[in-house]
Amino acid sequence: MSDIAAYRRFVDTFGSLADIGGSLRSGYDRLVFSPAELAARSWFRTEAERLGLEVEVDGNTNMWAWWGSDRSAAVGTGSHLDSVVKGGAYDGALGVVSALLAIERLQETFDTPRRAIVVVAFAGEEGARFGLPTLGSRLLTGALKPGDVLGRTDRDGGVLGDVMAAAGFDPDALGADPVRLGSLACFVELHVEQGRGLVYQDAAVGVISDVWPHGRYRFDLAGVADHAGAASMDGRADPMLVFADLVQLAEGVGNDTIRATVGRVEVSPNSTNTIASTVSAWLDARGVESDEVIGGVAAIREAVTARAKERTVVVECDQESWSPAVVFDQELTETVHRVVRDMGHRSSPIPTAAGHDAAILAGHVPTAMLHVRNPTGISHAPDERAAVDDCVLGVAALTSVLEELACR
Amino acid sequence: MSDIAAYRRFVDTFGSLADIGGSLRSGYDRLVFSPAELAARSWFRTEAERLGLEVEVDGNTNMWAWWGSDRSAAVGTGSHLDSVVKGGAYDGALGVVSALLAIERLQETFDTPRRAIVVVAFAGEEGARFGLPTLGSRLLTGALKPGDVLGRTDRDGGVLGDVMAAAGFDPDALGADPVRLGSLACFVELHVEQGRGLVYQDAAVGVISDVWPHGRYRFDLAGVADHAGAASMDGRADPMLVFADLVQLAEGVGNDTIRATVGRVEVSPNSTNTIASTVSAWLDARGVESDEVIGGVAAIREAVTARAKERTVVVECDQESWSPAVVFDQELTETVHRVVRDMGHRSSPIPTAAGHDAAILAGHVPTAMLHVRNPTGISHAPDERAAVDDCVLGVAALTSVLEELACR
Repeated sequence: MSDIAAYRRFVDTFGSLADIGGSLRSGYDRLVFSPAELAARSWFRTEAERLGLEVEVDGNTNMWAWWGSDRSAAVGTGSHLDSVVKGGAYDGALGVVSALLAIERLQETFDTPRRAIVVVAFAGEEGARFGLPTLGSRLLTGALKPGDVLGRTDRDGGVLGDVMAAAGFDPDALGADPVRLGSLACFVELHVEQGRGLVYQDAAVGVISDVWPHGRYRFDLAGVADHAGAASMDGRADPMLVFADLVQLAEGVGNDTIRATVGRVEVSPNSTNTIASTVSAWLDARGVESDEVIGGVAAIREAVTARAKERTVVVECDQESWSPAVVFDQELTETVHRVVRDMGHRSSPIPTAAGHDAAILAGHVPTAMLHVRNPTGISHAPDERAAVDDCVLGVAALTSVLEELACR
Repeated sequence: MSDIAAYRRFVDTFGSLADIGGSLRSGYDRLVFSPAELAARSWFRTEAERLGLEVEVDGNTNMWAWWGSDRSAAVGTGSHLDSVVKGGAYDGALGVVSALLAIERLQETFDTPRRAIVVVAFAGEEGARFGLPTLGSRLLTGALKPGDVLGRTDRDGGVLGDVMAAAGFDPDALGADPVRLGSLACFVELHVEQGRGLVYQDAAVGVISDVWPHGRYRFDLAGVADHAGAASMDGRADPMLVFADLVQLAEGVGNDTIRATVGRVEVSPNSTNTIASTVSAWLDARGVESDEVIGGVAAIREAVTARAKERTVVVECDQESWSPAVVFDQELTETVHRVVRDMGHRSSPIPTAAGHDAAILAGHVPTAMLHVRNPTGISHAPDERAAVDDCVLGVAALTSVLEELACR
């Protein structure tokens, strides 16, 4: 394929997915099982079938598109199609598009791979709707049980089991699928970088060494609603004040090796002239060392509880999820790194603070990850970017990796 | 009317309104022009017509129910039917119910008043939907111009002009109505107390001397959305941190003579694993002295701006409304106070920090206010309360006041 043809194929394919559920300017809302996410699933099926791939949907609503008949030790690749609220165009989508384009390029040379290549579009990686990140991959591996997820509700009160049934999926089919998981010999996920590590290394493509441990925590702060004008300042039980404490405590815990963020809050009744009765807030905490993250969160929790007591506000704190640290498979990562280096990308492996389906699979299957440079470094937001040139280089790198793993 | 009959009439009438748009347990959502508020308007029309009153709706959607033919120098009473989000049952409703019951009691003695009594149900007093408190009374007096309000939007993006048209009102009819305003010789509003002043005075009913000045301010804080895990702590432009500063600065400004509250916040994208891109927050500030309130808000604004600059967050601050201090008419207040005292209520006049339609009218018409004791002191919340005994005493007091002003 000529360079210009590769550019065209990328722009056409990525562009057709980028038309679904948002825009580059205003961001994407492709929350799991939403109409936009279901449209992205249809897009995936159409594109995969166009390449002659056989598309299956597993019991956990992950989509699998197979190329090749020897499926006993397949090479997996792919990513996810869902987004956060107002997310970027590349997170997840780039990995799925690149996987399909890599197969298209391999099909120019090979009638069929030596061992099957399967493109997986994992369901609900972001956790933006039900608060459960890497939903599809964690159900697949058994890290999440159906009972952990079926009753979860979204912000509109929609129950996961009902929502997935309404979208045409069978809630009774959820659950660990060791046979399917065992069909993967390895898994390589390509993803837009979430950060500027490759910018600093002046490289378009690189590999990820490991993923930081990551927890999500919900704080429910309950005070007493009252008239904002009529209630004296000192008789109040105002949970908004404790929320402010929480935001600042999280900032205080953050440093070079731990990140603590409060990005979501819900207030009731959320009225200008009423002191809040309840505030719910979500803390996202990640870091190099699990112990440091756990210790940081414990410190926040203790200090928030103390501040709340002074303010006669009641606190409840729940850990909504915990993703342990992941080191990717050393041999596979070295192979991927060698292929990338041989193509001229002079990057060294770097860790990521973002969770990925590949990190979930890593406990079961040799797994590696490729990153494509993100000039803004921004992710989970409309400003998330990757240059077309870099994306095309990413497709080329993934193509070479898959060729080495499945076609030689 | 016997004591027990008065109890029954109150419970029946108040109860029939309290069935609309919520419940005592979970609070009321009767936002202006919502189905629940329109149902409350229907209730008002039915109850007023049952008493033989003639019901009119003015161009500003306020409802006027007339008793008596000499309408040139009428005695006005009433309050409002709308609520805040999850408001209490009594705020506004008690004044409207008490006014209707007072007329019912006067009709036992008088065929017609010497000068007309008109019960007014003012539109949108709370400002909870469009951020414009005392909407109907300020339009009536000309304090608000139609152009100030027609384009205002609610949280769902509904435009006030469209919303009122959809509810059956004519947006072109909004505007100052000096003729109608001039038909009022005086106005007496009864309201549940928002605070515990009468509790401390051990009195069921009292009069209000004056209303504190009151401002509402909107802060728009704009940062840069990014991945909560991948973005380093020190490269962030996180508006949630500035919001926390704002909440604490408001608390710091509050004291015995000034109240500053942040009760409402809206975050985008409001996602656990994304640093917020924008936070909008609303500050409610009131106090004994206008200068002190204005100075306090200016101090908050300046400090927030400085903090935001350090955090590379952009701040815009708008004053959404300003209600100056109001001292009620001295002569009318003394008359009302005398009637109340003669009935055995040994309370002295107290100020209120809450805004009222009566305070808007006070610049144009001699105006006074009656308070009914609120045992919790809480308002704008489901825990807002008034004992039936106290409410019946409130009806009796308002009856005597109206008798003195209109029937003697």
